[in-house]
Amino acid sequence: MQEKINKLLSELTLEEKASLCSGKDFWTTEPIERLDIPSIMVTDGPHGLRKQAGDSDHLGVNTSVPSTCFPSGVGLASSWDRDLVEKVGVALGEETQTENVSVLLGPAVNIKRSPLCGRNFEYFSEDPYLSTQIAKHHILGVQSQGVGTSIKHFAANNQEYKRMSVDTLVDERTLREIYLASFETAIKEAKPWTVMCAYNKLNGTYCADNYKLLTEVLRDDWGYEGLVISDWGAEDDRVEGIKAGMDLEMPGNGGLNDKKIVEAVKKGILDEKDLDKVVRRILELVFKGIENARDMNYDKKEHDSLARKVASECMVLLKNNDKVLPLDKDKKVAVVGELANNPRYQGGGSSHINPTFLHNALEEMEKLGTVNFAKGYDANVDDPSQKLENEAISLAKESEVVIVFAGLPDRYESEGYDRKHMQMPENQVHLIEELSKANENIVVVLFNGSPIEMSWINSVKAVLEGYLGGQAGGGAVADILYGKVNPSGKLAETFPIRLNHNPSSLNYPGKENKVSYNEGLFVGYRYYDAKDMDTLFPFGHGLSYTIFEYIDIEMNKDEIEDSENVEVTVTVKNTGDTAGKEVVQLYVRDIESSVIRPVKELKDFAKVELVPGEEKKVKFILNKRSFAYYNVDIKDWHVETGEFQILAGSSVVNLPLKANIRVNSTRKIKKLFNRNSTFVEIAGHPVGAMIVKQITENMKQMFNDSDIFNENALEEMAATNTLRSLITFGAMNEEELQNLINQLNA
Amino acid sequence: MQEKINKLLSELTLEEKASLCSGKDFWTTEPIERLDIPSIMVTDGPHGLRKQAGDSDHLGVNTSVPSTCFPSGVGLASSWDRDLVEKVGVALGEETQTENVSVLLGPAVNIKRSPLCGRNFEYFSEDPYLSTQIAKHHILGVQSQGVGTSIKHFAANNQEYKRMSVDTLVDERTLREIYLASFETAIKEAKPWTVMCAYNKLNGTYCADNYKLLTEVLRDDWGYEGLVISDWGAEDDRVEGIKAGMDLEMPGNGGLNDKKIVEAVKKGILDEKDLDKVVRRILELVFKGIENARDMNYDKKEHDSLARKVASECMVLLKNNDKVLPLDKDKKVAVVGELANNPRYQGGGSSHINPTFLHNALEEMEKLGTVNFAKGYDANVDDPSQKLENEAISLAKESEVVIVFAGLPDRYESEGYDRKHMQMPENQVHLIEELSKANENIVVVLFNGSPIEMSWINSVKAVLEGYLGGQAGGGAVADILYGKVNPSGKLAETFPIRLNHNPSSLNYPGKENKVSYNEGLFVGYRYYDAKDMDTLFPFGHGLSYTIFEYIDIEMNKDEIEDSENVEVTVTVKNTGDTAGKEVVQLYVRDIESSVIRPVKELKDFAKVELVPGEEKKVKFILNKRSFAYYNVDIKDWHVETGEFQILAGSSVVNLPLKANIRVNSTRKIKKLFNRNSTFVEIAGHPVGAMIVKQITENMKQMFNDSDIFNENALEEMAATNTLRSLITFGAMNEEELQNLINQLNA
Repeated sequence: MQEKINKLLSELTLEEKASLCSGKDFWTTEPIERLDIPSIMVTDGPHGLRKQAGDSDHLGVNTSVPSTCFPSGVGLASSWDRDLVEKVGVALGEETQTENVSVLLGPAVNIKRSPLCGRNFEYFSEDPYLSTQIAKHHILGVQSQGVGTSIKHFAANNQEYKRMSVDTLVDERTLREIYLASFETAIKEAKPWTVMCAYNKLNGTYCADNYKLLTEVLRDDWGYEGLVISDWGAEDDRVEGIKAGMDLEMPGNGGLNDKKIVEAVKKGILDEKDLDKVVRRILELVFKGIENARDMNYDKKEHDSLARKVASECMVLLKNNDKVLPLDKDKKVAVVGELANNPRYQGGGSSHINPTFLHNALEEMEKLGTVNFAKGYDANVDDPSQKLENEAISLAKESEVVIVFAGLPDRYESEGYDRKHMQMPENQVHLIEELSKANENIVVVLFNGSPIEMSWINSVKAVLEGYLGGQAGGGAVADILYGKVNPSGKLAETFPIRLNHNPSSLNYPGKENKVSYNEGLFVGYRYYDAKDMDTLFPFGHGLSYTIFEYIDIEMNKDEIEDSENVEVTVTVKNTGDTAGKEVVQLYVRDIESSVIRPVKELKDFAKVELVPGEEKKVKFILNKRSFAYYNVDIKDWHVETGEFQILAGSSVVNLPLKANIRVNSTRKIKKLFNRNSTFVEIAGHPVGAMIVKQITENMKQMFNDSDIFNENALEEMAATNTLRSLITFGAMNEEELQNLINQLNA
Repeated sequence: MQEKINKLLSELTLEEKASLCSGKDFWTTEPIERLDIPSIMVTDGPHGLRKQAGDSDHLGVNTSVPSTCFPSGVGLASSWDRDLVEKVGVALGEETQTENVSVLLGPAVNIKRSPLCGRNFEYFSEDPYLSTQIAKHHILGVQSQGVGTSIKHFAANNQEYKRMSVDTLVDERTLREIYLASFETAIKEAKPWTVMCAYNKLNGTYCADNYKLLTEVLRDDWGYEGLVISDWGAEDDRVEGIKAGMDLEMPGNGGLNDKKIVEAVKKGILDEKDLDKVVRRILELVFKGIENARDMNYDKKEHDSLARKVASECMVLLKNNDKVLPLDKDKKVAVVGELANNPRYQGGGSSHINPTFLHNALEEMEKLGTVNFAKGYDANVDDPSQKLENEAISLAKESEVVIVFAGLPDRYESEGYDRKHMQMPENQVHLIEELSKANENIVVVLFNGSPIEMSWINSVKAVLEGYLGGQAGGGAVADILYGKVNPSGKLAETFPIRLNHNPSSLNYPGKENKVSYNEGLFVGYRYYDAKDMDTLFPFGHGLSYTIFEYIDIEMNKDEIEDSENVEVTVTVKNTGDTAGKEVVQLYVRDIESSVIRPVKELKDFAKVELVPGEEKKVKFILNKRSFAYYNVDIKDWHVETGEFQILAGSSVVNLPLKANIRVNSTRKIKKLFNRNSTFVEIAGHPVGAMIVKQITENMKQMFNDSDIFNENALEEMAATNTLRSLITFGAMNEEELQNLINQLNA
C-alpha cells in the first residue's frame, strides 16, 4: 500500500492534499476522482452504530439505521470481563461492516473525574487500568471484523461543561498515570485505526493543536502509527493542527481550512513535509477501509440475545439484605415505577441509537413470575403525584416484595452538559420512602448512567444497579431478579455518600474557562482510600447470590528485578450453593516511596466462574508497570527499589489476601547533593554518615543541660538541617564545604 | 533620628556596614564603639520571655531567667478576645523591658495547615482573620511597653518537617488569602518592629533571599517600614538576602558573611545602596531599642494571677452532656491521670521558658472540693500499667464523677519535628475506656498543643480542652471545673474525626524537599465546609454553662459600593441561668462568583459578657476586604458585584442568623473576547445576545426531528460553543468573525 500512497503523494496537487485534510461532509472523507481516491464513511458509536439514514450532510437530523444497542460504557466496564467485551466488539464490527461503514467512533475512555460529567455513561471507569483493558478488548473485537475504531476523546476531556473552551490544567505525572494511561495500553496493544482528539485545551493548548499530545506522547512515546481525527468541530487552528499531527478534520469545513493550508504552505509557515505526513495517514486509513470492506450480514435476533446476556453480566447487585433476592417465582411481586415499562436504556447525544428491538423489564418479569404493576411516578416530572403514590402503596401493601424501578430520566444526563447534583428526581425518592413504610421488602432497580445519592439506602433491602443496559436491559433485569442469572458485575466507579465527597469537588467544573486537577493522582478510589473516607459503595464492589472465599495467595518469586515478571496465584472458592462468577481483583501498594503515591492501585483482574464447592487458582502476571510510577525527571516509568504489597480480593475495601515482594530497580537515578541537601539525605553515603553522627552528637551536647528541646527534636533537627549549617554554626568554611559536596557527588 | 543615621551611614566603612548585618552572638546585635553604635538584645517569645542567664554565645545551653508563662498561641487564640490578648501583650512587654531586652521574638502566626505541625501549639489558628487579629493585639500590647516584637515565621512555614530545606509550593491567590493574610493586618495595623523570615523556601527561593516576599509584598504592597530578621540560621546566601531586603542575620556568623558582603560590593555584584538600606533599618531598630529602654519592674504574683485568668478564658468546653460540669463542691470527685499533678503547660523548643510559679490542677482542685487522686498511667511511657489502672478503676467506682487528665506528653510535640499521627498515648486511651466502664460520669481534661483523635468520645460525658495553659493552667482548670469561671473559649481550629480527613493529608509533608499546597484555599474549616464532611468538633465551637440565643441580625444598608462599609448588628441573649461570655462570629458567603471561593469565611467576631436574661446588640463593621478575594490578574483585592450572605452564630456550623447584602464593585475589569470565547460569555453584550439567540434557534432546528439530544443539551451546547464555531459550521468567514470580535471588544 505504501507504494501506491507514495505515488499518489507525488501526483497530488497542493490543493488536493489540503482538501483531503477534512471531511467531504459530516460523515465521509473527501474523495479525489482524478486519482481514484475513494471516500469512506465513519459513524458514531461506541455501544451501537448510529448511521444516519439518507444524506450525511447534516448532524443527526435524520433518524438512524436500526442497530443493536448494547449496554453503554459504564455497564460494559462493570462486567470486568475482557472476553465478553471483545464479543460485543465483534458484534459491533459486524454491524459496522454490514452498513458499509469503515470506522466506528468509539470506544470512549475518558476517566470519570467527577460523577457529574454528562458523558460518564459512555465512559468506562475512574481507574485507568480497568478502563484501558476494557477499551483494548472493545477495539480488538470491532477491528477483527475489518472495520476501524476511534478511541476518544484524547485527552483529559472529563467534563461536558465548557468542553469547547475549557483549559484542563493537570500536572505531567497525573496526566501520565491517570488520564493518558486510560488510552495508553489500548492504543499500544489493540492499535485502533484512529484516535479522536478532544474538544478541550490541555495545559494551555487545544488538544487538536497540541504537538506534545498528538506527536510527542502518542506517536513518539507510544509508537502509534494510525490516524488522528478531530472531534466534530474540535479543530481550532488548522495549520497548527497539521503541525501537531492532527490528521483528519471533521466535519467538512466547506473548503475554508483547505485554503488556509495552501496559503500556509505557500508562505512557508507550514512545511509541506508536515502536510504530507498527514495526507499519508489519511490515505492509509481510506485504503485500509476500502481494502477491508466486505459484504456482511448479521442476525438481529442473535445480537439481541447477546445484548441481553451482556447486560446481565454488567449489572451490579449493590445490596441484598436477608437474601431478598433472587425472587421465588411464586412470590407475589409488586413492580412499581414508570421506568419498568418505559426503560431508560441509553444516554443522550452522539451515542444515541435506534435499537433493533426494545424489551422492558415489566414484560420480561411477567414471563417469569407473578407481578402486578403500578406506575408510581411520572418520569417526565420531578414532583410527586399523590394519586400515583397511593396506587403504588396499596399495591405494595398486598404484595410480598416490591421492586421499584428508579433512576435518572433522560433529561438528567446527556452528552453536552453536566449534572448539577447527584440526586434522583424528588418523586422517586419520595415514592421509595413511602413504599418502605408500607412493605419491608423493598428492592430498588436503578437505570442511570452515573452515581446517585441514596438518602433512602437504609430503608430498602436490596439495590440492583442496572445502569443503562441497552435494548435488552429489561430482560437482563428480569433474569437477575428471578435468579436465572447470578449477578456478577462490579462497580467500575465509587459511589460517594455525598457529591462533595468526590475528590474533584473543590475544583470542578472550574472557573473562567480553566479547570485545575488539583486532586492530582487522587481520583476515584485513590482518594477515598487515602482520605480514609467512607463511601456509599466502593470501587470494585458487587454482590453475588453465592459466596466466594479468598483462600490463598502465592507468588513464584518474592524478589525480582524490575525487568522481570512475577506470577501471582490467587485461590478462590465458591462456598455458597449457587454457581456464579467472581471478579478477582489485584492491587499493588508501594510500602515506602520517595514520591507521593496512592495507597494502592488496581493492577490486574480476572472474572472466573465457579460451581458450588469449586475452587480455582487464578493466575496473574505482574510486570514493571505494575510497580512503577511515572518519573517526570527521567520522563519514564520507574520502579523504586523496595518492598511492595500485593493485595487480592473482591473490592478495593475487601482485600483479604496479602503478600509482599521486593522489587529491585535496574535503573539507578543519580542524586546530586548541594549546600542545601539535608544531613539525612547524605546519610546513605559513607562520608555523609560520619558527618551526620558528629552533628547529632554536637547538637545533643549543645543542649545538654537544657530542657527546651527533647531528644526527638534534637535528632530530627540535626537530621534535617542542611549542609550549609556547617558554615552557619562555624564547623567549616565555604571552601571546605564545597570540597565535601564534591566528595559526596564523586 | 534619621539625621543621626544619615551621618553614621556616611561615616561607616564598608566593612563596618557589613559587620552590622549580623548579630554579635546568639542574642545581641553588633556594636561599633568607634561610632557609639550600641548593641541591643533580642530573646525568644512569644508567650513568655526566654532570656538566657549568663553568656549569650550559645543557643539555649544555659537556663533562662524566670518569667511568666502565659498560655501558648493556640490557647490565646481560643479566647477570641482581642482585649485579653492585648493585656497579655502588655505584661509580656513589661517583662521584656524589665530584663533589658529590646525585642521579644513573637508572635508566631503561621497557619495551621496540618494538625501534625510540631509547632502548632505556638501558632494561633487555621483561619487568617482570627490569627492576624490576635497577632495584632499581641503586638500592640507588647510594643506599648517600649519594646519590639517579631512577627514570625514569614512565610508559609507550616511544618517542622524538613523546614530547613523544604520548598513550599503555593499559588499566589492562596498565598495572599490564607498564608500571607495571617501576617498582613497585624503588620499593617500594629507595625511590629521586626518581621522574622522563615527557614523554608517559598515557590523556589528561600524566604531569606526572597525579594518578592521581603520587598514586593512586605514593603511595597503593605508599606512595612521595620526590619526583617532571619530565623536563626535561615540565611542561605547573604548577598542575595541583602538584595531581597533581609536586614539582620541571626545568629552571628563569625564574620564569614561580612566578608562576602564586602567582596560583593567591591566586585559590583551588590549595590552599596542596597546595603545602606539594610544598615539603615538595623540602625533604626538599634536606636529605637535604646531610646525606648527604661527601668521597669513587674509584680510576679500579679502576672501569675493574670496568667490564671487568661488561661481560664482560653480553655474550650468541647462536650458537656447531662450538665456533668460544673462540679458541685460536695461531689465526691476522682482525679485520675499523672498530668493532673505533673501538668503539661508549655511546648518544647525556642518558646520553652522557666516559669515564675507553677500550679497544678490537683492542688487547685483540692482547694475547691473533695477530691481523691490516682495516677492512672505513667506519662513517660505509652504502655498501659495494669496496676495504675486498677487503682484508678477502684477509685472511680467509689466516686460520683471522674476527672481524667490526659493529652500529649512532652515527647509528642515540639518545635523541630512534626507528629506522625494524631493519637494520644495508648495507656491514656485504654485508661479512659476502662474508667468509662466503671463510672458513667467521665470528664476528660486535655493538655495538648494540637488536635487529637478521640476514639473514646462516646464513652465520656464531658471534655474540657485545656491546651497548653501556661504556668497557671492548673488553677484555670480548677476554676472552670468548679464553675468559678464559666468557660468561654472557642476552637481556633477544626478537630477532624481522623487525621486523613484533614485537607493537607494528600500533600503533607511533601516529598523530595517539596510540598505542594494543592488544597489551595481550602484550609481548615474552608475544606470541611466545602466537602460537606463531618468533623469531631468544628471551628469556632465551644460550650458554656449558660445558653446563648441568637435573636436578630440587622444591617444599616442592604446595598453598598465596595468602597463603603456596612454596619451589622447582631442581637444575642443569655437565656440560661449563669453569667457568661459568648463569642459572636460573623461569616460572609459570596453567593455566586466567577472564581472558586470557600463556602464562607470568618470576617469578624466579638466576645461579649451577658448576665442571665441580658440581651446585647453587638455591632460589626464590614468593609471591602470582608467581601473581596485576591484577584491575581489585577494584583489586588477585588469584590465582584453581586449578592453576599452575612451569617452570624456560635460556630462555623451553627449560624442561625442570616442576611443578604448586595455589593457593587467600583472597579470594572474589562474582559476581552476572542475566537474561543463562548456564546454565553458574550451574551451580556447586546450584539452577543442577538447572536446567541440565533445560534440556539439554529441548533434546535438542526436537531428538530431527532431525539438524540434533549432540550437541555441543545441549549447548553449552543451556549458553551465558541465563536469560532460560526466558521466551522459555515455561518461566517474569518474576516466577518474578526469584525464581530472587534465590535464586542469596542
